[in-house]
Amino acid sequence: MVGGGQGAFIGAVHRMAMALDGQYEMVAGALSSTPDRARASGRELGLADDRNHGDWQALLADELRRDPAERVDVVSVVTPNHIHFPVAQAFVEAGFHVVCDKPLVHTGVQAEALVTAVRKRGTVFGVTYNYTGYPMVRQAREMVRAGELGQVRKVVVEYNQGWLATRLEAEGNKQAAWRNDPAQSGGAGAVGDIGSHAENLISSVTGLRLESLSADLTSFVPGRQLDDDANMLLRFAGGARGVLVASQINSGIENGFRLRVSGTEGTLEWWQEEPNRLTHFPLSGPPRVLTRGAPWLHPAAQRASRIPPGHPEGFIEAFANVYAGVAADIRAHATDTIADPLEADYPGVEDGARGVHFIEAVLASARSSEKWTEVRG
Amino acid sequence: MVGGGQGAFIGAVHRMAMALDGQYEMVAGALSSTPDRARASGRELGLADDRNHGDWQALLADELRRDPAERVDVVSVVTPNHIHFPVAQAFVEAGFHVVCDKPLVHTGVQAEALVTAVRKRGTVFGVTYNYTGYPMVRQAREMVRAGELGQVRKVVVEYNQGWLATRLEAEGNKQAAWRNDPAQSGGAGAVGDIGSHAENLISSVTGLRLESLSADLTSFVPGRQLDDDANMLLRFAGGARGVLVASQINSGIENGFRLRVSGTEGTLEWWQEEPNRLTHFPLSGPPRVLTRGAPWLHPAAQRASRIPPGHPEGFIEAFANVYAGVAADIRAHATDTIADPLEADYPGVEDGARGVHFIEAVLASARSSEKWTEVRG
Amino acid sequence: MVGGGQGAFIGAVHRMAMALDGQYEMVAGALSSTPDRARASGRELGLADDRNHGDWQALLADELRRDPAERVDVVSVVTPNHIHFPVAQAFVEAGFHVVCDKPLVHTGVQAEALVTAVRKRGTVFGVTYNYTGYPMVRQAREMVRAGELGQVRKVVVEYNQGWLATRLEAEGNKQAAWRNDPAQSGGAGAVGDIGSHAENLISSVTGLRLESLSADLTSFVPGRQLDDDANMLLRFAGGARGVLVASQINSGIENGFRLRVSGTEGTLEWWQEEPNRLTHFPLSGPPRVLTRGAPWLHPAAQRASRIPPGHPEGFIEAFANVYAGVAADIRAHATDTIADPLEADYPGVEDGARGVHFIEAVLASARSSEKWTEVRG
Amino acid sequence: MVGGGQGAFIGAVHRMAMALDGQYEMVAGALSSTPDRARASGRELGLADDRNHGDWQALLADELRRDPAERVDVVSVVTPNHIHFPVAQAFVEAGFHVVCDKPLVHTGVQAEALVTAVRKRGTVFGVTYNYTGYPMVRQAREMVRAGELGQVRKVVVEYNQGWLATRLEAEGNKQAAWRNDPAQSGGAGAVGDIGSHAENLISSVTGLRLESLSADLTSFVPGRQLDDDANMLLRFAGGARGVLVASQINSGIENGFRLRVSGTEGTLEWWQEEPNRLTHFPLSGPPRVLTRGAPWLHPAAQRASRIPPGHPEGFIEAFANVYAGVAADIRAHATDTIADPLEADYPGVEDGARGVHFIEAVLASARSSEKWTEVRG
Repeated sequence: MVGGGQGAFIGAVHRMAMALDGQYEMVAGALSSTPDRARASGRELGLADDRNHGDWQALLADELRRDPAERVDVVSVVTPNHIHFPVAQAFVEAGFHVVCDKPLVHTGVQAEALVTAVRKRGTVFGVTYNYTGYPMVRQAREMVRAGELGQVRKVVVEYNQGWLATRLEAEGNKQAAWRNDPAQSGGAGAVGDIGSHAENLISSVTGLRLESLSADLTSFVPGRQLDDDANMLLRFAGGARGVLVASQINSGIENGFRLRVSGTEGTLEWWQEEPNRLTHFPLSGPPRVLTRGAPWLHPAAQRASRIPPGHPEGFIEAFANVYAGVAADIRAHATDTIADPLEADYPGVEDGARGVHFIEAVLASARSSEKWTEVRG
Repeated sequence: MVGGGQGAFIGAVHRMAMALDGQYEMVAGALSSTPDRARASGRELGLADDRNHGDWQALLADELRRDPAERVDVVSVVTPNHIHFPVAQAFVEAGFHVVCDKPLVHTGVQAEALVTAVRKRGTVFGVTYNYTGYPMVRQAREMVRAGELGQVRKVVVEYNQGWLATRLEAEGNKQAAWRNDPAQSGGAGAVGDIGSHAENLISSVTGLRLESLSADLTSFVPGRQLDDDANMLLRFAGGARGVLVASQINSGIENGFRLRVSGTEGTLEWWQEEPNRLTHFPLSGPPRVLTRGAPWLHPAAQRASRIPPGHPEGFIEAFANVYAGVAADIRAHATDTIADPLEADYPGVEDGARGVHFIEAVLASARSSEKWTEVRG
Repeated sequence: MVGGGQGAFIGAVHRMAMALDGQYEMVAGALSSTPDRARASGRELGLADDRNHGDWQALLADELRRDPAERVDVVSVVTPNHIHFPVAQAFVEAGFHVVCDKPLVHTGVQAEALVTAVRKRGTVFGVTYNYTGYPMVRQAREMVRAGELGQVRKVVVEYNQGWLATRLEAEGNKQAAWRNDPAQSGGAGAVGDIGSHAENLISSVTGLRLESLSADLTSFVPGRQLDDDANMLLRFAGGARGVLVASQINSGIENGFRLRVSGTEGTLEWWQEEPNRLTHFPLSGPPRVLTRGAPWLHPAAQRASRIPPGHPEGFIEAFANVYAGVAADIRAHATDTIADPLEADYPGVEDGARGVHFIEAVLASARSSEKWTEVRG
Repeated sequence: MVGGGQGAFIGAVHRMAMALDGQYEMVAGALSSTPDRARASGRELGLADDRNHGDWQALLADELRRDPAERVDVVSVVTPNHIHFPVAQAFVEAGFHVVCDKPLVHTGVQAEALVTAVRKRGTVFGVTYNYTGYPMVRQAREMVRAGELGQVRKVVVEYNQGWLATRLEAEGNKQAAWRNDPAQSGGAGAVGDIGSHAENLISSVTGLRLESLSADLTSFVPGRQLDDDANMLLRFAGGARGVLVASQINSGIENGFRLRVSGTEGTLEWWQEEPNRLTHFPLSGPPRVLTRGAPWLHPAAQRASRIPPGHPEGFIEAFANVYAGVAADIRAHATDTIADPLEADYPGVEDGARGVHFIEAVLASARSSEKWTEVRG
């Protein structure tokens, strides 16, 4: 693991997600960009001294020095965004499988370079768009694929949070600080942090290609450098329309991520704060509440579930589904076989790249007085 | 009453709203544009023969012929939109109070003419934006006015329906037919029918002045002439931003009208399908569920409520609140006094005019490739 | 109308329910047991002086004095419970149709006497068990009748309120005072006030005959004379089991009336605070949310609905459905025809009597250390 | 681990709960009562051959043979109920810490013997009443303890499931089979399987001592030997009353476990299918929705939470909280210190014993025609 040491929120989530199914064991790391903190974090988490490094370059060098059989299979990159590219690039080029947090990298150029590197080396590369790991999101995706909504006409996604309604980054909150520092998070604030999840949700569930968008970005909190509120109109190939809202100044709202997809034959609604339910409104007939674990779900949703219906699963389990998908692909890679696609079900480097192109288009539209801006696919 | 005869949905709603509080008695009418149907409808509803007219001109002439003490106090205009202007204008100029359905008229020019006429004659004029008659919408308005949300930053309103997901207007559905006939409903489809309610909800609750908007309109259903899906970005005086979605192709959705308002101190959420609740998310502290009828509500919400909390009130009651507000103003007018503003609480001709300017701006923006377009206030 | 004058809550509800559909006109009354208040109330509500009486005996005598064509068709009895019997009995015997509030009377003997009187005179008699007037409750009833739940095994009804969590009757609250005065409300507190609604809901929806019950009654609030909390186990003919909870000391709860019915083929759930929905859990397959007004509902639910789905109807509308049912029967009676049962759909005197027998059984069980007690059917 | 091999549902849950926080490593086991299946299961889960046993006696003997430093710290007993007692008793007496599934044992005599053994050896003993491990259940408990509800008057708990609405035990379902075999599960069906969770929830949240109960048990499904529906009236020391419903024949219901507690100052409601929320209805003022992870929760609820509010946690996390509590106590035990009670927060052997006495009282009441029966404390 690179990053994710003391004080980091997402590192602990990655570790719980890895632990849940017993398919990962963390044996080496460079857990912080500050060498002392990196090593202290590693000791706390039980890393052996000789695999507990002060920086990622040392980790990489040490791994390469070891016998291939002893090397780690996969590296998790859970640093602030600006470190993603060099670390991911280096490990991919050295032949390691990688799991990288989102948004993948800062620029479209970096994203394409990484895609090229992964294709060239043939390694496994997962991006932790964890929300599309929820079983009921996969169910939604399969229902759209199977034509149960008919032709998709409309997509509305809102991702609302309230935690940045005040200037938390000026009060010593580490999470808020790096997210609102353009050098670390790129030019996008809410758009990068949560808008990228929204893009991935739309893309994953509908499979539609986003052609163009018109975006209105605002920084509401005085002194803030990056957008904390983003609203945009979307146009998809084939004529579907959409709206995407990503805002972190909805005072009092926790993690309000919502999806509505309407097609000629029905509508689906999903809300992340109650992720075990998916409501299906058929064109005719009463709405149906689909629940995680039910036997009538699509196998892709069944596989993403660990316990019976009515016993709620949550965020960590969805996150773990991304890791489980990567693990299935790594196992297939090791045996030179093709993984069962129901198992190796995870967002890949192309999904990560698409998210980066989305962010670039949003920023370009906002800079040009919200003109319609093409999105590179 | 003008319009609202056999086969009309909204006429019956107006009549129930009038009946509920025993403040109105329907004594005369021209209930359809088809004279025979008009008279048949009137007979069915118990109008005396000499006050049951074949057209609104006859109704007006007959009323003017009568002794002022015997005349009706107020005329309800519940025709398709294109008739609103001539009827409302004629009755106002003849000195009658008027309740008119929304959207008020077809053009901004007509709207301003009507505003001028009402001001000149000093009559009472109500517009049945019924959704802002809900007690919990009034509670939201009072909370914003009292500063409980701090400075408003963000407004998201969605008004989603599914009933026009297919080409109902080609299947003999009268409601669908006139709404999708530009001659009768004006150039706006979903925008006029439900978008105007959304504009009124925003304006009523936040009091913000909408400065400009960028709108993307679509007609999804093949053969349809007017928009059935509208998405727009909003900018308000003072810097607040917003999103307005009005769509009638959300297959399977009934009447999904939702509001979210966020300010520096909190967020409010309201959903028309459960109108007795309003959720308040303070910046700090747990969300609170405010319910209709509770003793801690603002007097404006209390007055709009008839029965104790927990005994749900609905659409008809909200509609009746508009009529009750108009009645209070008519009584004050009759005695040359000023009505208690908590009682004479209803949308007036200026609110109706603002809605017309909104629709014009939306259509202009859509025609200009979604350019930001100023909204005349 | 008898009772329901100034200060009474339920009288106003009855009047709105009567007004809503334009089928009733209130022309005479004795609106309070205090003659001065009775007449003042009548004046306020626009009764002519010669039909505005100081007591119900005067009202009855005056009506009988009038020409039959001029007499009222139906009398609404909305007094405190202890007056129901003499008033209802007298008007029935005089040949008037009657609508009476619940619980019908104080004793099983009175109840049977009233049933006998109604049968003998052949008049129409409705009891305002208003909750079974909700369209979705009628839908539930029809689904059970049609066998959609298979054989009913289990019924759980809870009716929880919090308004009597403190000793409101000692603080000048008129509603609380008569309900907790054994002389006025009978020996039952919560059981009579809301438990009787619960009994009617079970009986109406399931059609099951309650054979025996074991009841545990408590008066939690110090100084209170009647039960404010009632819990009971139920056994039905044919083997179904049930639980009924009626409590008025659930601090902070408004009007939490809930039903769950389970059969061999599915379960239904309904909650009065969101009365436009009914959730159906089939034995196999996802739950379906049935909504008021939807075209796939049973005609009995359709008829009980005034406006389209998604436009909420509430308590007053449900109440008005009882009155509309009675009106349909009165019209049929006047023309010596049989009313359409879909229209004349209302709780009758036998339903009222059954509720009285239920209350007597509950009190008998509670007095006997919660022994199983037979319920007279 | 004893039990929990191939085909067992709950064994896998225990293993995920253990893995989540990285505080447990499974190194030895006797994973089935069938030696071959036990060893196959162990191999699948990566147990070393010399610690993978065919029966629990062999596991115990082998552990005792090893150097104390090499022995397991704690044994998880996840067998069908009838094996709990001998296994738990033997390991406790040999000085091992134990985590045992619920209900603890079959009889009150066994329960007290186990309590005595644990006290004598001074070992740590946890019972996986997992539902009281939910953070919001702990919040409810702390609110009651802090007097935020005033004096508790009323408790209603329902635990409804539908999975046994048909005779699943006759169709080869292993979970259904042992639960409905009196030899394996004891004399209680739904009462033992889920009623015991309900008893623990009441006891944990309210702290009230259950004095007596009157229970009505039914086996609805033809051919079933044990109760599949249980309804009971409860009386607590100090005068509070309650209702407990546990039913497995609610066709279509998944895992509907609900709690309502009312006191003089307010009411709490919690529903297991949305476990991240707890609704608090104060006696006066609007209801408040408390959410997991919020900074204003009690420290006991904070500690039971891993990720920020709005990122749902579920069943596995709650289960893991029981294991984390036991681990904290084991660490304290190892260092001869007293664990922080906020950390060592888990149901112990006395809680398990109380559940057994509860079941015995329920069965005794049911056998005696639902007479009030004392519950041994």
